[in-house]
Amino acid sequence: MIKISLLGSTGSIGVQVLNVVRRHSDKFKVTAIAAGKNSRIFLSQIKEFMPTYAGLSDTKSAEEIENEIPDGVIFEKGDNVLNTASLFDDADIIFVAVSGFVGINAVINAINNKKRVAIATKEVLVAGGSLVTKLAKEKNVDLIPVDSEHSAIFQALDFDYNKPFKKLIITASGGSFRNYSYEMLKNVTVKDALKHPNWNMGKKITIDSATLMNKGLEVIEAMWLYNCSLEKIEAVIHPESVIHSMVEFEDSSVIAQISYPTMEIPIQLALTYPNRLNTSVPSFNFSLQKSMNFYEIDIKKYPCYKIALESARIGGNMPCAMNAVNEVAVEMFLQEKIKFLDIPVIIEKVLDKIKLTEVKNLQDLIETDLNARRLAKEIVSMENYANY
Amino acid sequence: MIKISLLGSTGSIGVQVLNVVRRHSDKFKVTAIAAGKNSRIFLSQIKEFMPTYAGLSDTKSAEEIENEIPDGVIFEKGDNVLNTASLFDDADIIFVAVSGFVGINAVINAINNKKRVAIATKEVLVAGGSLVTKLAKEKNVDLIPVDSEHSAIFQALDFDYNKPFKKLIITASGGSFRNYSYEMLKNVTVKDALKHPNWNMGKKITIDSATLMNKGLEVIEAMWLYNCSLEKIEAVIHPESVIHSMVEFEDSSVIAQISYPTMEIPIQLALTYPNRLNTSVPSFNFSLQKSMNFYEIDIKKYPCYKIALESARIGGNMPCAMNAVNEVAVEMFLQEKIKFLDIPVIIEKVLDKIKLTEVKNLQDLIETDLNARRLAKEIVSMENYANY
Repeated sequence: MIKISLLGSTGSIGVQVLNVVRRHSDKFKVTAIAAGKNSRIFLSQIKEFMPTYAGLSDTKSAEEIENEIPDGVIFEKGDNVLNTASLFDDADIIFVAVSGFVGINAVINAINNKKRVAIATKEVLVAGGSLVTKLAKEKNVDLIPVDSEHSAIFQALDFDYNKPFKKLIITASGGSFRNYSYEMLKNVTVKDALKHPNWNMGKKITIDSATLMNKGLEVIEAMWLYNCSLEKIEAVIHPESVIHSMVEFEDSSVIAQISYPTMEIPIQLALTYPNRLNTSVPSFNFSLQKSMNFYEIDIKKYPCYKIALESARIGGNMPCAMNAVNEVAVEMFLQEKIKFLDIPVIIEKVLDKIKLTEVKNLQDLIETDLNARRLAKEIVSMENYANY
Repeated sequence: MIKISLLGSTGSIGVQVLNVVRRHSDKFKVTAIAAGKNSRIFLSQIKEFMPTYAGLSDTKSAEEIENEIPDGVIFEKGDNVLNTASLFDDADIIFVAVSGFVGINAVINAINNKKRVAIATKEVLVAGGSLVTKLAKEKNVDLIPVDSEHSAIFQALDFDYNKPFKKLIITASGGSFRNYSYEMLKNVTVKDALKHPNWNMGKKITIDSATLMNKGLEVIEAMWLYNCSLEKIEAVIHPESVIHSMVEFEDSSVIAQISYPTMEIPIQLALTYPNRLNTSVPSFNFSLQKSMNFYEIDIKKYPCYKIALESARIGGNMPCAMNAVNEVAVEMFLQEKIKFLDIPVIIEKVLDKIKLTEVKNLQDLIETDLNARRLAKEIVSMENYANY
């Protein structure tokens, strides 16, 4: 029985983790869950999975359900619940599926506690990759990728982080606007941007897919997870999203991982690797698929991709700042405070004002993160972007 | 230094094995070579690679060069040279690249001598798969695939024959006539059939590709190499021949191996696995590739594929007989004694006359093989196929 502490249980990934647990209830047991404010969903999860520990960080939401918590479940509320769940001892794996940079504390806690960590929160590695991977190495803890692309690479390496390779090739769907010209992007709406052609995901990542920032973040994530330079990573547009990523080896042989677009496989594999269990995913039918296509990324159309890579090339606290502004800018776009093409503009403006520093500890990251968020908000409020 | 005894050095695969040896002469040494009758090429190979042993089976061809053999090379001629090379002791690997069923003796010799065997001769496993794999298991000898498809599967399994899988998916280019209708196949010439769109190979295998018999043989070969039932193997037409084959695992995740069509990778990997060395093959460029396509196999157009699978389903000596008639029929087509669409007709007619028996030893196979060849020749001579 694999025991799981799940952070972010009510989010898109969290819910899918629980689907996997439900399918194989003889193999998996959720011993702790934590979430933000979706109290009704959280309560139903508690009742179904009966974890030992359940924590909701939003106090007001927690109060709506605290009288309904079944006996035998320790229920907590407030800012500390993510910490508690990430340090939960009766767990073999800490599954970090909270959204954004905020997940970094949980990841560091889990590593310090010498628990295997499944990371579904790419922002943690983008902003804090150097710290997190160094610590994981020191503590001899496995970081397990959950993103479909990084899971594909992990599979192509046969789950061996030490296998030598020549290149990683990350595929990108091209997002909601892959058939739009640059001109057409000027007036797209939030609703348009949230219509992803292949994947049904959270809002933040769907917008990141539309800007291709998501692919930039994934390249940086891959750089840290697979301990290689930026030059050894490529991305290519693959509209069908069935090849999830690839590894090219020394002899120019490429190993690719293919499946219908689903998070069920990477989530389950994060729990079971190097072994595999059955899933609800149908066998891939190649003659029904008919074709797989590939295109080069058009940097002019997707400036966020270039900005992300540039921040990684500069290094230090730059990826952390870039990630922070992006989180703010995406949120503002979702709130219709800025337009779609303002996202890269705001990121570049903030990065111009950020002082490059070395990242020595978590405090350095937190400072950069806060500073970048503050600058982003300032710029938007001063420059009057909104014109919906 | 990996020492190689190479059987079939002047054939298409043999020449490419020597290319690999030449590129990495610090890693590989050819200690023995054997071939049939291409004496001039054989002599130049002897002079360049200076093997300890060199044997040419055709006595007359051997006599043309025997005075030119450099000092230090033991040169022999006649029927026994393949045996000698396959039992050569100063070799780590016996590379069997002779064409057709005749290679079976060499494979069995090598296994009995507890040498690692690289098998480029699929006919050996098609006809004698049960015997050969049983013997290899008894002697704890690795059989290493060289066919690009089986090498792809081997790579997708990370070189682990014991890794559980749900399905093997073998890709087929569709051969020279993949864009022809069945009607158009009636009058195709030898020259047409030898124009393979993606691969430059020997004549036998190029015709087998055009009839799709090659894919039937490969399914049977995979069945033996990967110890699974016919039902766990599928084939799909993939005209670009860049995905060389795939493995589907329990969770419906598929691992595929991709490269430009080349034998350099599978040949070299047969010598170095699980390690890889650089090759002359360029990195795969996905955006230049643009697309990969897939189609179901049209059984009406490719009756040979169905016949091959049917023989495997029946089992016993049937695949051996099927393979023998096919070798004869392809040779007759190449000699313009029969038409392209006569190939499956002759195979079916012979198989109808073959008595199903169990295969207990090599003698049983040799008898079936000889009997099938005799029947094939009889049918062709009696029924007057030739009308070119």
